[in-house]
Amino acid sequence: MDRRSFLGLTAGAAAVVGFAPVLRARESTPYTAAHPLLLNQNENSLGMSPYAIEAAEKALAVGHRYPDDYVQALAADLARRESLVPQCIGVSNGSTGIIEAIIRSQADKNATIVAPAITYGQAGRLAKNWGMAYQAIPMGQDFRTDIAAMEAATLRIDGAVLVYLVTPNNPTGRLTPSDAIAAWVKRAPDNVFFLIDEAYHELVSDPAYMSAVSLVNAGYNNLVVTRTFSKIYAMAGMRVGYGMAHKHVMKDIKRNYASWNVNVVAAIAGSAALRDGAFFQRSFDENQAAKKMVYQAINHLGLSCIPSEGNFILHEIGMDLKAYQRAMADRHIRVGRDMGTGQRWNRLSMGTVDEMAYFLAQFQRLHS
Amino acid sequence: MDRRSFLGLTAGAAAVVGFAPVLRARESTPYTAAHPLLLNQNENSLGMSPYAIEAAEKALAVGHRYPDDYVQALAADLARRESLVPQCIGVSNGSTGIIEAIIRSQADKNATIVAPAITYGQAGRLAKNWGMAYQAIPMGQDFRTDIAAMEAATLRIDGAVLVYLVTPNNPTGRLTPSDAIAAWVKRAPDNVFFLIDEAYHELVSDPAYMSAVSLVNAGYNNLVVTRTFSKIYAMAGMRVGYGMAHKHVMKDIKRNYASWNVNVVAAIAGSAALRDGAFFQRSFDENQAAKKMVYQAINHLGLSCIPSEGNFILHEIGMDLKAYQRAMADRHIRVGRDMGTGQRWNRLSMGTVDEMAYFLAQFQRLHS
Repeated sequence: MDRRSFLGLTAGAAAVVGFAPVLRARESTPYTAAHPLLLNQNENSLGMSPYAIEAAEKALAVGHRYPDDYVQALAADLARRESLVPQCIGVSNGSTGIIEAIIRSQADKNATIVAPAITYGQAGRLAKNWGMAYQAIPMGQDFRTDIAAMEAATLRIDGAVLVYLVTPNNPTGRLTPSDAIAAWVKRAPDNVFFLIDEAYHELVSDPAYMSAVSLVNAGYNNLVVTRTFSKIYAMAGMRVGYGMAHKHVMKDIKRNYASWNVNVVAAIAGSAALRDGAFFQRSFDENQAAKKMVYQAINHLGLSCIPSEGNFILHEIGMDLKAYQRAMADRHIRVGRDMGTGQRWNRLSMGTVDEMAYFLAQFQRLHS
Repeated sequence: MDRRSFLGLTAGAAAVVGFAPVLRARESTPYTAAHPLLLNQNENSLGMSPYAIEAAEKALAVGHRYPDDYVQALAADLARRESLVPQCIGVSNGSTGIIEAIIRSQADKNATIVAPAITYGQAGRLAKNWGMAYQAIPMGQDFRTDIAAMEAATLRIDGAVLVYLVTPNNPTGRLTPSDAIAAWVKRAPDNVFFLIDEAYHELVSDPAYMSAVSLVNAGYNNLVVTRTFSKIYAMAGMRVGYGMAHKHVMKDIKRNYASWNVNVVAAIAGSAALRDGAFFQRSFDENQAAKKMVYQAINHLGLSCIPSEGNFILHEIGMDLKAYQRAMADRHIRVGRDMGTGQRWNRLSMGTVDEMAYFLAQFQRLHS
């Protein structure tokens, strides 16, 4: 089944991906205070691919050796996949590892960070740690990233600027149009550098989406694109991610982080995960099915959802956030924290279809 | 058998630790160009402890979850062991992860690094990357770290100073006397901060040695002590290390690195490794036995060895370094690179007793 046609299905999505039907899941209560249902950190409940686990088990036999050769092998795998030379790839501890190094490079240039007001928080935290100016640009309608306002803000800044764009954005789930990003990167003045965070890249189904890596392929040297194995590959605990940029840009970024800091088991499992197409497809399909279930059930209660291209949905909860978090905690479910989206919204991470059935049953009871 | 009494043995060390006798090992040639004998990176050839491997295998089941809880558990284990509160511990990607963060903190203070001329190279590389002043203080006699000259150098510097001291030092293998370090830390002026790198701490047999963590325990806030799981625990590929400092100091360092960057498998295996006393002892004993063999064989050829408290020996090679490296590469053995110790010296990493028997047979042939 291809990705697009899967979206056309409306019924039986849970059965299609091989899981128990919703009603049965509603009756079971497998969660406890010690083992809650984790819908709070955009992890992938499927767990790592069996093929990656097998590779990781074997990798433990070289756990006593420094990882350089295996990290280089993963970089070569990624370079081939993206039609880049290996010097353009920086493998790191999750994408957060290289994001940290990029922002450090920009801090050394005394850059101002320009980012949407609602986005992934790492850049903001580091800016605060390192005393950098940070401009949070208000969101457009329905949590859209306001590219025009962001660009206007950059044009009012004299010195170095780092534009931080997560697409699909977290926690909104919205894509920033690929053509708008490309056009901006192409016309931006020399003082503006772009960090395009594509943590949820592999989960996107919108046919208009195009990775910003095409700009790196085209030779632009004013951006880095970052990705992670934490989401579709279900490897959040393994800490593997990577950046892609012009080789001169990557060389500069590598002054600020040590690639040998990637675990040898993670590097080997990462290379294996890239070869497990069946798991990749299952992971994609499960996420699509879970989102479809959640949209339907929440809309049925008269509450809004923001259409998401990630593995999470920003939705109305119909009550105060703190009370909602408490009520869900009582049911052994962890939901999203306050992410600046207002007190009556929450970011819900997608679990498996079974997990979402359990969640939705509890959510419906809370609203009945 | 306790550590001290083991040192008293002179014969049969290989047999004591349960390995084949030297002569048999000399006859076998298990190494190839693709699988050389690695005596170049101070790894631990024993491989990870079976108990740590078992824990790591189980940990793969949570490879899709962010590692925070497990990293905190490891920090708590380490804190208990060292009689510190968990806020004093910073678990990181190998000790290099936290060393990078410490040097970054000092770069922000425009610090000058003062270090022995011959020591582990990370501080020097980062100083160069980040445009920091770096004073390499000439070694004393027989590769001793010249503490008096280092202190005198710090007193000539007006601004912030970072003293980088590795003890036992790499690649010399020598301890810097613990009492001299303690006395200096206690009397140092406010502009001087100490990074005491104890990567080889667990391998030390000198009864006069005392970890600088006692100064952290005593409340001093002008030092960080770093350690690693790469050496005695044979986990170089897992990338786990830690720093220990006053909790205010550690809080400042943590602005510069993300503890979530430690792999979940590594954190769980690290906690398991701390509980495997049998492996720890075996690792210690094997290293002692290997060093004893190497001292004897090399001295027998009329070449000098520097007595080492690490898992490596700096020794005379009786020929030019490049020629030596080539000759050993021809025999599928990787030895140390140029570490500034002069062209007729080399740092040799200790492998198992069997591996060292093979190495020594080849070394003897080279000199016969």
